[in-house]
Amino acid sequence: MSMITVSWDDPVVRDRLGRIRQQAPFIYGVTNYVAATLSANVLLAVGAAPAIGTAPGWPEAFGASAAAVWINTAALISTSEKDMLHVAACARDAGVPWVLDPVAFGAGSAEYDRIVRRLLDFAPAVIRGNASELMALAGGDAGGKGVETTHGSDDALRHIQALAARSGAVVAVSGATDYIASGSKVFVVTGGDVRLTRVTGAGCALGALIAAFLPVCDTAVDAACGAHATYAAAAERAGRHAVGTGAFGVGLLDELSVLAGLQ
Amino acid sequence: MSMITVSWDDPVVRDRLGRIRQQAPFIYGVTNYVAATLSANVLLAVGAAPAIGTAPGWPEAFGASAAAVWINTAALISTSEKDMLHVAACARDAGVPWVLDPVAFGAGSAEYDRIVRRLLDFAPAVIRGNASELMALAGGDAGGKGVETTHGSDDALRHIQALAARSGAVVAVSGATDYIASGSKVFVVTGGDVRLTRVTGAGCALGALIAAFLPVCDTAVDAACGAHATYAAAAERAGRHAVGTGAFGVGLLDELSVLAGLQ
Amino acid sequence: MSMITVSWDDPVVRDRLGRIRQQAPFIYGVTNYVAATLSANVLLAVGAAPAIGTAPGWPEAFGASAAAVWINTAALISTSEKDMLHVAACARDAGVPWVLDPVAFGAGSAEYDRIVRRLLDFAPAVIRGNASELMALAGGDAGGKGVETTHGSDDALRHIQALAARSGAVVAVSGATDYIASGSKVFVVTGGDVRLTRVTGAGCALGALIAAFLPVCDTAVDAACGAHATYAAAAERAGRHAVGTGAFGVGLLDELSVLAGLQ
Repeated sequence: MSMITVSWDDPVVRDRLGRIRQQAPFIYGVTNYVAATLSANVLLAVGAAPAIGTAPGWPEAFGASAAAVWINTAALISTSEKDMLHVAACARDAGVPWVLDPVAFGAGSAEYDRIVRRLLDFAPAVIRGNASELMALAGGDAGGKGVETTHGSDDALRHIQALAARSGAVVAVSGATDYIASGSKVFVVTGGDVRLTRVTGAGCALGALIAAFLPVCDTAVDAACGAHATYAAAAERAGRHAVGTGAFGVGLLDELSVLAGLQ
Repeated sequence: MSMITVSWDDPVVRDRLGRIRQQAPFIYGVTNYVAATLSANVLLAVGAAPAIGTAPGWPEAFGASAAAVWINTAALISTSEKDMLHVAACARDAGVPWVLDPVAFGAGSAEYDRIVRRLLDFAPAVIRGNASELMALAGGDAGGKGVETTHGSDDALRHIQALAARSGAVVAVSGATDYIASGSKVFVVTGGDVRLTRVTGAGCALGALIAAFLPVCDTAVDAACGAHATYAAAAERAGRHAVGTGAFGVGLLDELSVLAGLQ
Repeated sequence: MSMITVSWDDPVVRDRLGRIRQQAPFIYGVTNYVAATLSANVLLAVGAAPAIGTAPGWPEAFGASAAAVWINTAALISTSEKDMLHVAACARDAGVPWVLDPVAFGAGSAEYDRIVRRLLDFAPAVIRGNASELMALAGGDAGGKGVETTHGSDDALRHIQALAARSGAVVAVSGATDYIASGSKVFVVTGGDVRLTRVTGAGCALGALIAAFLPVCDTAVDAACGAHATYAAAAERAGRHAVGTGAFGVGLLDELSVLAGLQ
C-alpha cells in the first residue's frame, strides 16, 4: 500500500480550485435540510453554482444537466426514497459523476440502511463519510451515534480500501486525519480543525465540495483529494482566529472564498 | 419610458422601513429550506414577524391573517403543489397582497414551470426574480443554470416591462443593477454587492423583504422599491468590512438591523 | 408559591453543562427546517451529539436509543402527523425523556392545535414555549401572531403553573424573564438579550438545549433550569459585542461553546 500526502501547498490542488471558479460548474444536490444551507454556501464560496432538492421535474432536468451531483442520504428526512433513487438513476444514465454521502448508515435503522445500499447500484464516483458510516457500509459491525462517528478515521482505513475495491468508487473518510482510497493507493490529508465536528453539516458540505471538484478534475480521486485538501486548509485558517464554534463556521466560508479568490 | 432612481438616501425609503419596525407586520411565507432561515432572519432584522411553511391549517389561518405573504416556488422541494397553490388562493381571497419569487423558472423542468405559471392566476402584487427566471416567465427563451441566472439584469429590462403589463403585477429583477417595472415606469436601484450572489438564499430573502414592505406602503411599487433600496444599502455596507462570503452574509443581517434601528 | 432565582453563577449549573461535554449525549429531535440548523449547532456547541428528522426507521431507532428527545411541533411543515407522534411514542415507550415545544399553538389553526394536543398523551418531561403558546395550551384564550408571542412571560406565570399541575410536566416560558414551573415551585432566570427574539429559531434551539440537559440531570426541572440559565448567560455575553442581529446569532454559538469549554 502506498500512502501519498496531499495538501493545499500542492500547486495542482490550487489549480483545481481555480478551475471551479473559472468554469462555475452547475452542481445539483439532494441533501437534508439541516445541512443544505451550509452546503450551498460552501459551493458558492468557491464559485460553483448549486441547486438542491427534488422539486417536480428537477431530478430529470438537473440530474442530467448538472456537471456533477451529490446525494446525502439524510435527505430522506424530507425526500422520498423514490425521488432520491431517481436522481441517482438520472445522473448515472446521463454519465454525470456523483458523490454518495451515507450519513448515519449503520446507526440503527435497517430500513434506512437498505435504501442507502440501493444507491450503490448507481455507481457513485466517490463515497465519503465518517469512520462509523464507512466501516458499516464496508460490512464491518461498526455503528455510529446518530449522525456522529464513534470510531477514528485510522480504524476505518482498511475498511475504506475494501469498499473502494468492491465498489469501484473512490472512498474518502473524514476524521483527525482524512484518508482517500482508490485502487491500491491511499491519499492522506492532515490539518483541518476539530471544530469541524462542532458545526452541523460541515461533513455534509465536504461531500458537496467533492462534487464541485469532479467536473474540473481528470479523475475522481483527484477531485476527492482536491476537495479534502482545500477544506482542511480553510478549516485550519478559520481555526486560527475563531473564538468559538459560531465564528468558526462563518470563518470556514470566509477562508474558502479567500482561497478561491472570491472574497 | 421614464427611469427613476431610488436609494436609501431618499427619506421616504427610510420612513417605510421605520414603519415596519413600528407595526411589526406578520409576514407569512412558503419557501424552500435552503433559503428559509436567512429569509426569516432578514424579516426579524427589520422588525417584521415571520412564519414559514404549510403545517396543517396554516395556509388558511396564516394566508388570510398575515399582513402580506411571499411564495418562493422552490418551496416545492418539500411542499406539495396543492399546499402552495392553496396559500396563494387564501391570500388572494382574503385580499392579502403577496410576492411571487419564481426560483429556477425556465431552468429545464416543464413540470415545475407549469406549476409556477398557475400561481399567476392568483394575482401576485409583486413578481421578483433574477434575469433568467423573469425573461423565461415573460415568454423569452432564456433559461438559467439551476437557480442561477445566465443573463444580466439589463437583458431582462424589456421583458420585465412586458410581464408587468401583461400580469398587472410590479416586476422586479435583481442583478448588478436592479430594475422595478410598474406600468410605464421603471425604477432603478444601484449599489449592493456582488457577494449577494455568493450567499445562498440572498435573492430569496429579498422576496421576503418585499413582502414586509407591502403592508406599510401605499402601493406595491413603493414596497418593491423600498425593499430593493434597503437591501442594496445593507449589502453595500456589509461589503465594506467583510473578509469573505461568510462574514458578508452575517454582515448583511447586521446592517439591516442597524438600518432598522434594531441592533 | 416559592420563587427561586437560578443563574449561571450557580456552580450546579456549570457542573450540569460540564457533564454534557463529558458524556456527549445523543439527542434526537424532530423540528422545523427554519430552526433545525441553529438547534443542531447549539447542541454541538455544548458537546452533545444531535440528529434531526424522521428518515425511515429513525423514529424507532433514534427515538428509543437517544439519551433525550425534543419535538418542536412546527416540524409539521415537512413531517407527517403520524411520524411526529410515532417519535413521541417511541421515546415514551423506551423511557427516554423528551421536551415538547408547541410552536405557534393557539395562533389560529384548529387542525394544527389538535395534533399538538395529542402529544400531551405521551408524557413530555418538559414543555417549553413563549407566553402566547403556553397560555393557549393551558386553556387561556391567548393566541400569538404566527410563531411570535403577543404576551409577556409575566402574563403566562399562573398559566404555566396550571399546565404543570395538570400535565405533570415541568413547564418553562421564555421572555424578558424566564419562568420554570414545577409542582408548587417557580424558578426564575433573568438576563439574556432581547435580540434572542430577532434570531430565527433561537427559542426552538432552547428546546433542544433543555433536551441535552435531561440525561445529565437528576430531575427535569434541573435540566430546564440549567438550560435556561446557560442560554441566558450566553446571550448576555454575545450581546455585549454584537453590532447587529447577525453577529448576535453567531456570538450566541460562540459563547455557548466557550461556556462549555469547547471553543
